[in-house]
Amino acid sequence: MSIQFAFELEHRDRSTAGRLGRLCTPHGVIETPVFAPVGTQATVKTLTPRELAELGATLILANTYHLYLRPGPELIARLGGLHRFMAWDGPILTDSGGFQVFSLANLRRVDDKGVLFRSHIDGSEHLLTPEKATAIQELLGADIIMAFDECASPMDRLQVEDAMHRTHRWAERCLATHQRHDQALFGIVQGGAFADLREESARVLSSMPFAGYGIGGLAVGEPKDVTWAMVDVTVPLLPEDKPRYLMGVGSPEDLVEAVSRGIDMFDSVLPTRLARNGAVFTREGRLNLRNARFAEDPRPIEEHCCCYTCQHFTRAYLRHLLAAGEILGLVLNSIHNLAFLTDLMADIRAAIREDRLAAFRSEFLGRYVPVDEASRLRGRELYGRRRRGEEDT
Amino acid sequence: MSIQFAFELEHRDRSTAGRLGRLCTPHGVIETPVFAPVGTQATVKTLTPRELAELGATLILANTYHLYLRPGPELIARLGGLHRFMAWDGPILTDSGGFQVFSLANLRRVDDKGVLFRSHIDGSEHLLTPEKATAIQELLGADIIMAFDECASPMDRLQVEDAMHRTHRWAERCLATHQRHDQALFGIVQGGAFADLREESARVLSSMPFAGYGIGGLAVGEPKDVTWAMVDVTVPLLPEDKPRYLMGVGSPEDLVEAVSRGIDMFDSVLPTRLARNGAVFTREGRLNLRNARFAEDPRPIEEHCCCYTCQHFTRAYLRHLLAAGEILGLVLNSIHNLAFLTDLMADIRAAIREDRLAAFRSEFLGRYVPVDEASRLRGRELYGRRRRGEEDT
Repeated sequence: MSIQFAFELEHRDRSTAGRLGRLCTPHGVIETPVFAPVGTQATVKTLTPRELAELGATLILANTYHLYLRPGPELIARLGGLHRFMAWDGPILTDSGGFQVFSLANLRRVDDKGVLFRSHIDGSEHLLTPEKATAIQELLGADIIMAFDECASPMDRLQVEDAMHRTHRWAERCLATHQRHDQALFGIVQGGAFADLREESARVLSSMPFAGYGIGGLAVGEPKDVTWAMVDVTVPLLPEDKPRYLMGVGSPEDLVEAVSRGIDMFDSVLPTRLARNGAVFTREGRLNLRNARFAEDPRPIEEHCCCYTCQHFTRAYLRHLLAAGEILGLVLNSIHNLAFLTDLMADIRAAIREDRLAAFRSEFLGRYVPVDEASRLRGRELYGRRRRGEEDT
Repeated sequence: MSIQFAFELEHRDRSTAGRLGRLCTPHGVIETPVFAPVGTQATVKTLTPRELAELGATLILANTYHLYLRPGPELIARLGGLHRFMAWDGPILTDSGGFQVFSLANLRRVDDKGVLFRSHIDGSEHLLTPEKATAIQELLGADIIMAFDECASPMDRLQVEDAMHRTHRWAERCLATHQRHDQALFGIVQGGAFADLREESARVLSSMPFAGYGIGGLAVGEPKDVTWAMVDVTVPLLPEDKPRYLMGVGSPEDLVEAVSRGIDMFDSVLPTRLARNGAVFTREGRLNLRNARFAEDPRPIEEHCCCYTCQHFTRAYLRHLLAAGEILGLVLNSIHNLAFLTDLMADIRAAIREDRLAAFRSEFLGRYVPVDEASRLRGRELYGRRRRGEEDT
């Protein structure tokens, strides 16, 4: 790993396991804890790069699986790489395609060599291997890339164990094949919902020279207490001087909780997907702007929010746009939800710096109305649809 | 009409009938000739007001018919009026609802009183009258508002004549009922494809104290030579010191042609609708970015265009966004197409100032590839769909 990727731990919160850090990349410094908006197909849905920069995004994620299938990594490389292609000059992280190939594609065969699958777009057959996933990510040219991993259903122990061991063997091959010195390669801890497997995976991967560590295979439908139990057994076993990335987590309450447990990085389609469904974050909880009670509401989504949406538009106008099927409504809601999370992460960092993250967490979770049961169930349906091939496309 | 609406004719082109002017409104000065992007439902589709201002829009249009049905003019008035509702601080023009009620709604009865129709949204029954259309536009609070008119099929002489006479009677009633001094009220010349009726309509309306004149009922599917013949009989009969507005015209070639014939103002959904279909303007003609030949094209849409899209993105990226169904593609194409037209209008104004509009027109039309026959036919289909209720929603 090049000096460009130095991860400096600036401060440890004395009230929780939260940490404040700075991750240096060739495209700029990322202050951690950080939330990364997801730009699945080389675009954070509905937003220009300028809007993303303005709302405070410092790191964005793109999906190797999607970009491999369309428009193809060679095309992106010929056009100058992913940063130039999508006109985002800041840091980018690409996942390995592991999660997507198991959740979106039609699997044909999984063995030590790799994963044979059919594209969810056109049914064409492809083989992804650790070497190929790494080569694709080198062509894309993100600042942070992920080792190719196998994702298993988290409750099936035999399957999880098998997938974990294969993930470890693939991790070695990713490290062996990775060439670019301007990219940081992260490993991914697996182990499903089994504490002993999580521990084993954290130990094995920690012994490999990764620049950071993802925690994968969580937040995929398992109960929350299982998620946190798995995080809690994993985090203490990871190297202290490397960033820890809880993949696929992005609800406000989960971010606050996970940072308190020692996580440094996050990504999720949740804020942008909710935005497109009309749901927006506030410090008091989620609002669904499609609700008739907002029809004449002259307030912004949040009184003290500094985002472009809250500085210019009322809830009444946003509801009108949603009711009229206008794209601008999706844009403005997306701006707010991402600004909400970048603001939240800034507040979290300030709390860590002042050793008061425990108090911040209590106060935040005391005020924030968690998603009600009906919405939780809808969330599971969403998850079900995702597994059937829609993800964030 | 208040002094705020002074229309100053700054210069007359010596090579054509083109004119350069300044139309003062309470929300700013509009340099004419001007093209107004259309924001049917209080949003120029896909764009933020900031993007609109940046690409050079100085006047935007909103649709009375749509806003009357949803969210309702009283609601918009209670929220501070249309400017504040949609966060657009510049001049706004609202049409009268006349064209939409005849093209989108299910007509029930048309008589001198007004138009009884059923909403295309929910089938509810409504009566629009000259008085009501004016009152709605007063509630919306646009800077420029239009008299309520009856639109007839342009080739049916009996129907056209009847509609024209009713439009004249309604024009008197709009003038009589209009109260707000911070709004300029324009009349609308009708007369279909009949020169003598156009002449009559221009004479009758010119005798009424309107602040400006729309030319309506054209560009609705009739042959181009008919359009220009009607413009040419109408323009000389309109007061020289009032702005002339050719409603619903917005292709680059038509703008150049119409300005040369003495028109000052335009609006059309064409640039934004084309953009959402993947078609973008260049000085050489239209490109459809969905075409496979753009898959690896590293150029911007236009080399020397200063719009946000051309300054940051390649044709290859824009094509990828379209192929992947990404909303950002619609946003970026819309920015370019509107910037193209505002730039074109600026070039037209410069040519008028230097008495070289005839040369500019020759050069522009010599380079610009007009839409081919297949696209013209598709255009007619579009028109057909519009008449069946889709318009720009």
